[in-house]
Amino acid sequence: MRIMTYEKAGAQGVAVERGGEWADLGATDLLSALALPDLAQQVAAAPVLDQDGVSILPPLPKPSKVICVGLNYADHAAESPYDAPDYPTLFPRFNSSLIADGAPIVRPRISHELDFEGELVAIIGKGGRNIPKEQATSHVAGYSIFNDGSIRDYQFKAPQWTVGKNFDNTGAFGPWIVTADELPDGARGLKLETRLNGEVVQSASTDDLLFPVADLISIISEAISLEPGDVIVTGTPAGIGWARTPKLFMKPGDVVEVEIEGIGILRNPVIDEAA
Amino acid sequence: MRIMTYEKAGAQGVAVERGGEWADLGATDLLSALALPDLAQQVAAAPVLDQDGVSILPPLPKPSKVICVGLNYADHAAESPYDAPDYPTLFPRFNSSLIADGAPIVRPRISHELDFEGELVAIIGKGGRNIPKEQATSHVAGYSIFNDGSIRDYQFKAPQWTVGKNFDNTGAFGPWIVTADELPDGARGLKLETRLNGEVVQSASTDDLLFPVADLISIISEAISLEPGDVIVTGTPAGIGWARTPKLFMKPGDVVEVEIEGIGILRNPVIDEAA
Repeated sequence: MRIMTYEKAGAQGVAVERGGEWADLGATDLLSALALPDLAQQVAAAPVLDQDGVSILPPLPKPSKVICVGLNYADHAAESPYDAPDYPTLFPRFNSSLIADGAPIVRPRISHELDFEGELVAIIGKGGRNIPKEQATSHVAGYSIFNDGSIRDYQFKAPQWTVGKNFDNTGAFGPWIVTADELPDGARGLKLETRLNGEVVQSASTDDLLFPVADLISIISEAISLEPGDVIVTGTPAGIGWARTPKLFMKPGDVVEVEIEGIGILRNPVIDEAA
Repeated sequence: MRIMTYEKAGAQGVAVERGGEWADLGATDLLSALALPDLAQQVAAAPVLDQDGVSILPPLPKPSKVICVGLNYADHAAESPYDAPDYPTLFPRFNSSLIADGAPIVRPRISHELDFEGELVAIIGKGGRNIPKEQATSHVAGYSIFNDGSIRDYQFKAPQWTVGKNFDNTGAFGPWIVTADELPDGARGLKLETRLNGEVVQSASTDDLLFPVADLISIISEAISLEPGDVIVTGTPAGIGWARTPKLFMKPGDVVEVEIEGIGILRNPVIDEAA
């Protein structure tokens, strides 16, 4: 199933794709919808979503944890100033930085080093601690797409990347989730492509993840309880603008797309922060 | 005012100190209590909290952002492997790692390198972006205490500290907040002391913060919108166990206290993770 979170007249709702249209489950949220014992019947019986006044939201607008993974493709680690890791490099997104599909990514006043990073997202459906790797992907409700917009000079102002990864309106998430049952186990073998103004700037397979989804869930949960609705952003492949000669940053007027096979396309324009 | 968040029979409530006793505001949360236009009158009229079955919670059990600051005392930066910073080093605490005053800090199965870090906490009452430094402390609702329990080997397994700072049951926060009006502006000039089994292991003044609270709020909000209830954990002074020879880690049976003048004492026992 393809499940979208939307806003209409200030209220949040959820819609599910049904044969090319959106079936409207009404005022609920993604996790509640997924927990319905009769979800398939409710989808079958739901009215078509009246798209008038609807705007799409991130699948989870305020996740409790957004755990991002750095250096998780060998070719990207090689273009970075870091060694390829033997343990996942984790960093946070605060949910204040998240935007939906179609919303503008905002280049801040204080830096023009705005870079793209196309990434696969795993959304936790069932929580746990010390989750064995063999069971890990059964904890995933679904998969989505992320553009981990990064302000590079701020990312490297201090030993921790936090600020450069958390500017307002830089973390694009969506457009929807695809439930895990519709994709290969762990969302393996999917083509991931980032395009800037139509030009391919990143192209990889999720098979190339150094720590695939199952490993991430197992390793993270040795330390940290995962909870339903937690979001794991699995890392970006090579091709980022900062590592190019000359550097390629996003600027107002650009349109950036991240496409993952079987999930969809996350598309965002770029604008400048208001003066 | 001294404001405590508590749990009783599964419900959350808030109590305010009134002449040596706790006035019970009933089922609410810290931010809602602070927003009451007639808070002082409600406190005056409230019944005494019946402490039977009450357990204290972190002042904010599920903050939207917990932004921690590293290397924010010169003497601690000197004992670390890092240079003293010219920009704050920020890292996250996910709220799954938080525990209240009195709750056990848990030494995990997979590491015994459990270290203490006593810290001053600022709690945002009024949100904003691009907050000028001169107005920054007016955005603080109150101050509290944190023990940023750190799993050192995991902190340094990757270039980002995230995992070592986010083990379950390692972030002690409380016991309560003291509202900003009862402390010096920016909580400056307060003595901070960490004691392990009664022995002083950290001793500093909040005057020694390299980036005081006003600077942190101003600098963070250049990038990140601050929201009511966001928590800034301002950093720890010298004396951490990892930097000692021999290293001094916390172990089951220990009791660790962080005291900040004018705020109170955060006291936690240490236990081992269940097998």
